[in-house]
Amino acid sequence: MPEERPHVVIVGAGFGGLRAARALRRTPVQVTLVDRRNYHLFQPLLYQVATAGLSPEDIAHPVRAIFRRQRNFAFRLAEVLGVDVAGRVLRTSTGDLPFDWLILAPGGTNNFFGLDSVEENGLALKDIEDAVAVRNQVLRMFETAVQEPDADRRRAMLNFVVVGGGPTGVESSGALSELIRLVLTKDFPDLNVKDVRVILVEATDRLLGAMPERLREVTAEILWRKHVEVRFGAQVTRFDGERVVLRGGEVIPARTLIWAAGVRAEPLVDGLGAPLGPQGRVRVRETLQLPGADRVFVIGDAAYLEDDQGAALPMMAPVAQQQADHAARSIVRALRGEPLQSFRYRNPGSMATIGRNAAVAHVKGLQFSGFFAWVAWLVLHIVLLIGFRNRLLVLINWAWDYFLYDRAVRLIHAREMHTGPAEARRAHPTDAAGEAAAKKAG
Amino acid sequence: MPEERPHVVIVGAGFGGLRAARALRRTPVQVTLVDRRNYHLFQPLLYQVATAGLSPEDIAHPVRAIFRRQRNFAFRLAEVLGVDVAGRVLRTSTGDLPFDWLILAPGGTNNFFGLDSVEENGLALKDIEDAVAVRNQVLRMFETAVQEPDADRRRAMLNFVVVGGGPTGVESSGALSELIRLVLTKDFPDLNVKDVRVILVEATDRLLGAMPERLREVTAEILWRKHVEVRFGAQVTRFDGERVVLRGGEVIPARTLIWAAGVRAEPLVDGLGAPLGPQGRVRVRETLQLPGADRVFVIGDAAYLEDDQGAALPMMAPVAQQQADHAARSIVRALRGEPLQSFRYRNPGSMATIGRNAAVAHVKGLQFSGFFAWVAWLVLHIVLLIGFRNRLLVLINWAWDYFLYDRAVRLIHAREMHTGPAEARRAHPTDAAGEAAAKKAG
Repeated sequence: MPEERPHVVIVGAGFGGLRAARALRRTPVQVTLVDRRNYHLFQPLLYQVATAGLSPEDIAHPVRAIFRRQRNFAFRLAEVLGVDVAGRVLRTSTGDLPFDWLILAPGGTNNFFGLDSVEENGLALKDIEDAVAVRNQVLRMFETAVQEPDADRRRAMLNFVVVGGGPTGVESSGALSELIRLVLTKDFPDLNVKDVRVILVEATDRLLGAMPERLREVTAEILWRKHVEVRFGAQVTRFDGERVVLRGGEVIPARTLIWAAGVRAEPLVDGLGAPLGPQGRVRVRETLQLPGADRVFVIGDAAYLEDDQGAALPMMAPVAQQQADHAARSIVRALRGEPLQSFRYRNPGSMATIGRNAAVAHVKGLQFSGFFAWVAWLVLHIVLLIGFRNRLLVLINWAWDYFLYDRAVRLIHAREMHTGPAEARRAHPTDAAGEAAAKKAG
Repeated sequence: MPEERPHVVIVGAGFGGLRAARALRRTPVQVTLVDRRNYHLFQPLLYQVATAGLSPEDIAHPVRAIFRRQRNFAFRLAEVLGVDVAGRVLRTSTGDLPFDWLILAPGGTNNFFGLDSVEENGLALKDIEDAVAVRNQVLRMFETAVQEPDADRRRAMLNFVVVGGGPTGVESSGALSELIRLVLTKDFPDLNVKDVRVILVEATDRLLGAMPERLREVTAEILWRKHVEVRFGAQVTRFDGERVVLRGGEVIPARTLIWAAGVRAEPLVDGLGAPLGPQGRVRVRETLQLPGADRVFVIGDAAYLEDDQGAALPMMAPVAQQQADHAARSIVRALRGEPLQSFRYRNPGSMATIGRNAAVAHVKGLQFSGFFAWVAWLVLHIVLLIGFRNRLLVLINWAWDYFLYDRAVRLIHAREMHTGPAEARRAHPTDAAGEAAAKKAG
């Protein structure tokens, strides 16, 4: 029976792909969701994994568990290699997948704007492995600094540069500064806290550019109170692993750079033959259809569409989810022979949290900040998490950290967590020798 | 002031090293604990990480958090390279560490008895990375099998061979079989459960060799009920990643082999110049001192000592902990000029759990099995875990899995979780291509 139903293939188990698959649960189609991971990642809390507040497992949920009761659903763990739009075939690492309808929700990836040295030596924050790498690096720098006799080298180990004043950069630098001030200073009483700097580098003169001016100022003020040094109008041009070089030549000695300054659509969409907009996003039609291909929809971070004022729709979960609903509804309409409708985005507002008791929120023209906004942020993110167990675990971890001024998950994973049996077991010492060995192997 | 105090260096943050450091908290010495990890790992529950029941973070605790309030304590994250016994210096990857007293508690590592092919292609269960690698492999085999059209190849993907009928092998195979029967069959309704086999290979004719006969039989019976095929008198001679070859030539087609058949002392002790006993363990004196070196104690898995009946003390946490207490007391006695005493092991009994509602226990000559032993096992392990937060999280995970017949942590980590920034971000597709790439890189 499922063979006779139209086959809807969805690429990506992010907010968009998940929502589209779910929206089609009562539609007489067969759904196949393809992703290279077997889990959905709740990306908005990724920075809390990077700053040792949450375990990776707290914010990830197996795709098969989410859809266990959906009968018209199948999952395929595979890398997507390309799309044969005319032939209606999705090329994957485990073989071809023919489709009647395709919803592409592959999301975004980091954009280093050609700064190879930053890409090579810096860290990013797009997936679980990134977040664990950041956690490893920060904790390792403290363990290394406490054994370093040279004051200059020690200070460089304790300088943490975050690049980009958007939500990721603001949230990461705030959480990082708190991890250091509230927790690591107790772990390392021998280190001088004055040697520790968290520096947020932003190219323009504003943080959280999409927020109204008052909230942008509040954000800068809160970061200042949390000992984050914000450098406006500063651009990183090079990072060799020891020195961050800014445009103009200024050098910040630092061993850690976290890149939160640019995202772009997954390169998969480059091969669609469609016109691309800013950030490599596909310029879709008003219906979210790929130009020239009625059976292919592109949604979420990978799609470029403007609102009524001509501003690009942001790369955020609510956009992806509303577009997912729209694409699913469009397939239903098409199956009924009805004409498709244009997508219209309803902005639910935006928020950012900046550590303990502090957040900013802009909802329906109203501006909130401080403790109230922070509590609203907590409640909203608990509600949005998938699965009762994840909610409970995140809640426990938050309560623990809040009341005890702790970050419990400060573990340095020394070796790769990978599938290859032999590689996984090969010794990787945790110190400088290990890093060198890893670099050689990589 | 600390400089004037005798310096006690402890190697290893396992059960022995941790206990020794704690036992010295009120002694007028300065303690330095050296480990290549920054956390203590609760190894008895490692197999539950491997079978997707617990997160790695649930059973690991940062060393600095454990000792935050101990004033005479310092931690050094470093690899131990060797010991200059005569010069009283510990050589580490971050420099030399002079000591007045040394307590070596480096633990054990896997012993493949020269079976290179097994070491190369099999998986082990000694640390967190091992456990995550097993979890990755098992889940990945299901994801691969469900896409595999060839029946023979599919069955090989669904054969899981566990080698070794000791506690690790018994507990792993039981938990693995339950993960498959209770959870994965629901995730993969298209797979035929009859294609799935968990095979426990044991060279002798008994499981849990240290247990009394009745409990050994109960163990075999419980495993049989849980669909684990136990192969007695069978020895693995080769594993190429596709076929497990037994002595005599029999071949089991399987893509997964978990090695739980041999441990030996950390090779670090090979360089001490002391006589080694079975499993590479150092033949220590009755006082736990290294022969010919009064200021060096060796404890735990790395030390070889016999009980009154001439049987080797087992490589288990209680032995390490009692020896740690003894070594700490010995240092106190030596500081007071009193003679050292012989170590005497008080056997607290042993237990093993074999999945839901089933465990065997041998305590003070009494034998328990079934539900009561299982509850006792649960309570004991919760109590033994370090930290209220870890206890709470493990308890929640256990309750969740027990009542919902679930294993929530079934995530495949696709890429290494490593410190090297560039390596951590490099794309590692999750499929066969990725495995090949990883092998090339390794």
